[in-house]
Amino acid sequence: MAVKILLSEDEMPKQWYNLAPDLPTPMQPPLGPDGNPIGPEMLAPVFPMNLIEQEVSAERWIDIPDEVRALLHKWRPSPLYRAHALEKALGTPARIYYKNESVSPAGSHKPNTAIPQAWYNKQFGIEKLTTETGAGQWGSALSFAGALVGLEVKVYMVRISFDQKPFRKVMMETWGGKCIPSPSDTTEIGRKILAEMPDTPGSLGIAISEAVEAAVTDPTGKTRYSLGSVLNHVMLHQTIIGLETKKQLAKINENKVDVVIGCAGGGSNFAGLAFPFVNDKINGDQIDIIPVEPASCPTMTKAPFAYDFGDTGQMTPLMPMHSLGHKFIPPPIHAGGLRYHGMAPLVSAAIKDGLLNPTSIGQIECYQAAIQFARTEGIIVAPETSHAVASAIREAKKAKEEGKEKVIVFGLSGHGLMDLLGYEKYFANELVDHEMTDDEVAESIKSMEGLPKPQ
Amino acid sequence: MAVKILLSEDEMPKQWYNLAPDLPTPMQPPLGPDGNPIGPEMLAPVFPMNLIEQEVSAERWIDIPDEVRALLHKWRPSPLYRAHALEKALGTPARIYYKNESVSPAGSHKPNTAIPQAWYNKQFGIEKLTTETGAGQWGSALSFAGALVGLEVKVYMVRISFDQKPFRKVMMETWGGKCIPSPSDTTEIGRKILAEMPDTPGSLGIAISEAVEAAVTDPTGKTRYSLGSVLNHVMLHQTIIGLETKKQLAKINENKVDVVIGCAGGGSNFAGLAFPFVNDKINGDQIDIIPVEPASCPTMTKAPFAYDFGDTGQMTPLMPMHSLGHKFIPPPIHAGGLRYHGMAPLVSAAIKDGLLNPTSIGQIECYQAAIQFARTEGIIVAPETSHAVASAIREAKKAKEEGKEKVIVFGLSGHGLMDLLGYEKYFANELVDHEMTDDEVAESIKSMEGLPKPQ
Repeated sequence: MAVKILLSEDEMPKQWYNLAPDLPTPMQPPLGPDGNPIGPEMLAPVFPMNLIEQEVSAERWIDIPDEVRALLHKWRPSPLYRAHALEKALGTPARIYYKNESVSPAGSHKPNTAIPQAWYNKQFGIEKLTTETGAGQWGSALSFAGALVGLEVKVYMVRISFDQKPFRKVMMETWGGKCIPSPSDTTEIGRKILAEMPDTPGSLGIAISEAVEAAVTDPTGKTRYSLGSVLNHVMLHQTIIGLETKKQLAKINENKVDVVIGCAGGGSNFAGLAFPFVNDKINGDQIDIIPVEPASCPTMTKAPFAYDFGDTGQMTPLMPMHSLGHKFIPPPIHAGGLRYHGMAPLVSAAIKDGLLNPTSIGQIECYQAAIQFARTEGIIVAPETSHAVASAIREAKKAKEEGKEKVIVFGLSGHGLMDLLGYEKYFANELVDHEMTDDEVAESIKSMEGLPKPQ
Repeated sequence: MAVKILLSEDEMPKQWYNLAPDLPTPMQPPLGPDGNPIGPEMLAPVFPMNLIEQEVSAERWIDIPDEVRALLHKWRPSPLYRAHALEKALGTPARIYYKNESVSPAGSHKPNTAIPQAWYNKQFGIEKLTTETGAGQWGSALSFAGALVGLEVKVYMVRISFDQKPFRKVMMETWGGKCIPSPSDTTEIGRKILAEMPDTPGSLGIAISEAVEAAVTDPTGKTRYSLGSVLNHVMLHQTIIGLETKKQLAKINENKVDVVIGCAGGGSNFAGLAFPFVNDKINGDQIDIIPVEPASCPTMTKAPFAYDFGDTGQMTPLMPMHSLGHKFIPPPIHAGGLRYHGMAPLVSAAIKDGLLNPTSIGQIECYQAAIQFARTEGIIVAPETSHAVASAIREAKKAKEEGKEKVIVFGLSGHGLMDLLGYEKYFANELVDHEMTDDEVAESIKSMEGLPKPQ
C-alpha cells in the first residue's frame, strides 16, 4: 500500500501540452486599445519572441528543452500521494490522490513556469526580468529561477504586502532578486502615484504597471517582463503537473479518474493539473473537472465571459475571459493568490465550452478542510490550496453518500509555512466569509461597459 | 547526469543502526545524583519501556516496525542530490552530494525520530506526550507526529521564542499540538520561577523541567516525556538518513566517500547521517567525518569530555559527554538548534575514540555559504544547516587546492523558510561572530567542578 507514487527523472514528460488546438471552439484573440487583434510583434517589447511564439502557438505538444528539464529536476518529478489517512477519517469509499507541488524550493507550483520563462529569456539574450508580486509567491519563484539560470530579477511588491510580509523580501534577496515596494520612485507611473497618494498601500495593478514600464523603458533593450499566471504560455509550462500525474496513475493501474480538482486564481495551477485531463474529456472520457475559487472572488461562477483588461491600470491588452471587471478589488481573504478579478483565457474558454465545472467555497470551510488535512495527511497547505482540499473533501463525502468508489485527484499547489497568519486568525475565530452577492457582481462588472464583446 | 538519486519506498532501510556495540571503547553509563549508574527502571516514569530498551540496547540492528515505516513514507526515502551547480561555481574537482531532509512536512530531520517516538509511546498505552522546544523545530515535529499517530502533544516553548516566533505556535496548533510559553503556571517549577522572576524570558533548561514535571506528575500515568536529540534512541532513529544515503551512493556506483559532514547541536542530525559511515571507518575505510558546530558554542572543539547534566536545572541524569557546563548560555546566534551546552553521549564517545574530526565555524561564514548555496543549488537552508554547507565548501576548496577528486557528502538537515530573520540580519550587516575564547571556556566549565569524572 504505497503512500507516494514516484517517477524517475527519465520518466518526466519531455513535452508540454497545449490545450488551445484541442478546444472545440477556437480561442478569441487579445485585442489592442483600438479593438483590433494584437499581433505577436506588438508584444515584443514586453516578452521575448520565443515565449511569444509559445503564447500564440497552435501546436499541441511543445518540446521541453534539455537544459530546462535538468533545472526542473531540482524537485521534479513531484510525488503523487494517496491520501489513505484522509480517506479513513472521512470514511469514504473514494480513492483520493494529491499531486504535491509544495516540494519545490520556493514551496509552490510557480517555479514550473519561472524556470522556463527565465531560461527562454536568457536564450533570447535578455539579462534582466521585471515582475510584480502580491503575497510574494511569484516574486520568490522568479528570483529562484533567476539565480539558477543567471538573470537579474527585479520584483515590484505591493507595498502593504512588502510591509506585512518582510520575509518574502528576504527570500527573494537570498536568491539574488531585488524587491522594491510599489509604488516606487523608480518608474514614472510610480512617481506620479506617490505624488498623488503618498500613503497608498499599493495594488497589484500599480505593481504590474511599474514592472512593465521598467521593462519596456530600459534603454539597453535587455530587459523583459515576466508574468506568473493568466497567459497561455504559463498554462503550457504548468501542464507538466497533470502529465506527470497521469503517468503516475497509470503506474498503479488507476486508469479511470472521476474528479480532478485545482484551486484557481489566475488559473495556472488549475490548468497545469487539469488540462491533460481536459484533453481526455474532449476525447470522450467522463470526468468532472473542478476549478475552485473563493466565494468572495467568484470570477468563474458568477462573472460573465467578456473582454477585459488584465490589470487595474488598463495597460494590458483586452483578454477574452471571465472577469469581475478590472476595477474589482477582492476582499482581503488570506488566499492572496486567488484574489484576481479575471481568469486565464484558456481556462475561461474551457468553461465556455462546457468542459469544466467551476465551484466557489468560503474561506472558513477551506481552513477547516486544511486543518483536517494537516492532522491526517501531515502537510500544512497554502491558503490557496485549502480551496482544493475543501472541494476534494466535499467530493469524497458525496462519493460516500452515493456509495461510489470514485477516484478523486487534486492539486496540492503549495505549502503554507510562509502564510500561517490565516491559520492563526482561524484559531482565534477572527476569520469572516465574504460571499459576493449577485448585486455586487452586477455593480462590479460595470467597469467593463463600453469594451468590445467576445463572440 | 542525474540531479537527484531516489529510492523507492521498498528500498527504505528496514532496520536502524546502533553505533554503541561497534564503538572501540564501551559507552560509560549515565549516573544518578548519587554518582551511581542509572538503571533502565529509573527512567520508567519519564519514557516508555520500549524506548528505554532502545536507549540501552547493545543490538547493532533494530527493526523498524512496518507501521512506522508507512508513516515515514509520507516523505521518505528522502532524495540525495548531486550539487552540480555548486561544484561548478567553486571550480572544484570534488563531487558534492547532499541528503535533503528538508522535504519532511515539518521541514527538517526531526520527524525521523518524532514519528517512532510517538508510535512507541502509543504502543505502550501512552496517551499524551510532553516536550520542550526552543526555536520550535522539535515542537513542530512532535506535534506533526502526534497528529499522525494519534497522541496529544503538549509543548513548553521558551517564552522569548514563543513571543518572537508566533508562527511556530501556529504550526503546532495546526497539527493539534498545544503550545505553552515557559515558564508557565501549569507546573510547580513554572509557578515558582514566575513568582521569583515574573518577567523572565525563559530558557530551554526551565522548559525541560516543566515538560518532565508535567509528564511524571500526571496522575493517570498515561503521559510521558519526549526529547528531540542527545539520547541514544534518538540517534538510532536518525540513522535512517545515513543508511539511505549509502544505498543511494551505491546505486550510482559512488563506492568511496572521502568526507561526511553534518551540523551538530545536540547531535542527532549529524549522527543520523554519519554513524553508518563511522561503522565503515571502524571497519577500516579512510573517511574524514566532520561534525560542525558554531564557533560561539564550541562543545566538541574546545570543551572537555566530562559527566554533566543535560539541563540547566540539573534534573536529568549525569551524562558522559563533551560539555561547556550545564550553566553555559550560548550567545543568541540564529542557529537556535545548535545552541546546546552538551553533545550526545554517542557522538562524544565517537570523538573520544578518534573517529570524528569536529570543527567550528562562525555564523557569518555560514550565511555566506548558505547564500552561495541558495543561488546555485536553489534551496534556502536553515541556519543550523548553513554550518554543514560552509564546511562542505571549505572541503571542496581544499580538494581544488590539492587537485583531488574527493567525494563529499553533507546533510541538508532543514530548510530555512521559518527562520529568515538571520538572512535579513546578514543582508543588513547586523550579524556578529562570537568566537568563544579558551579563557571563556575555562570559566564556563567551572559549573562541572565536583561532578564525577568519566574514565
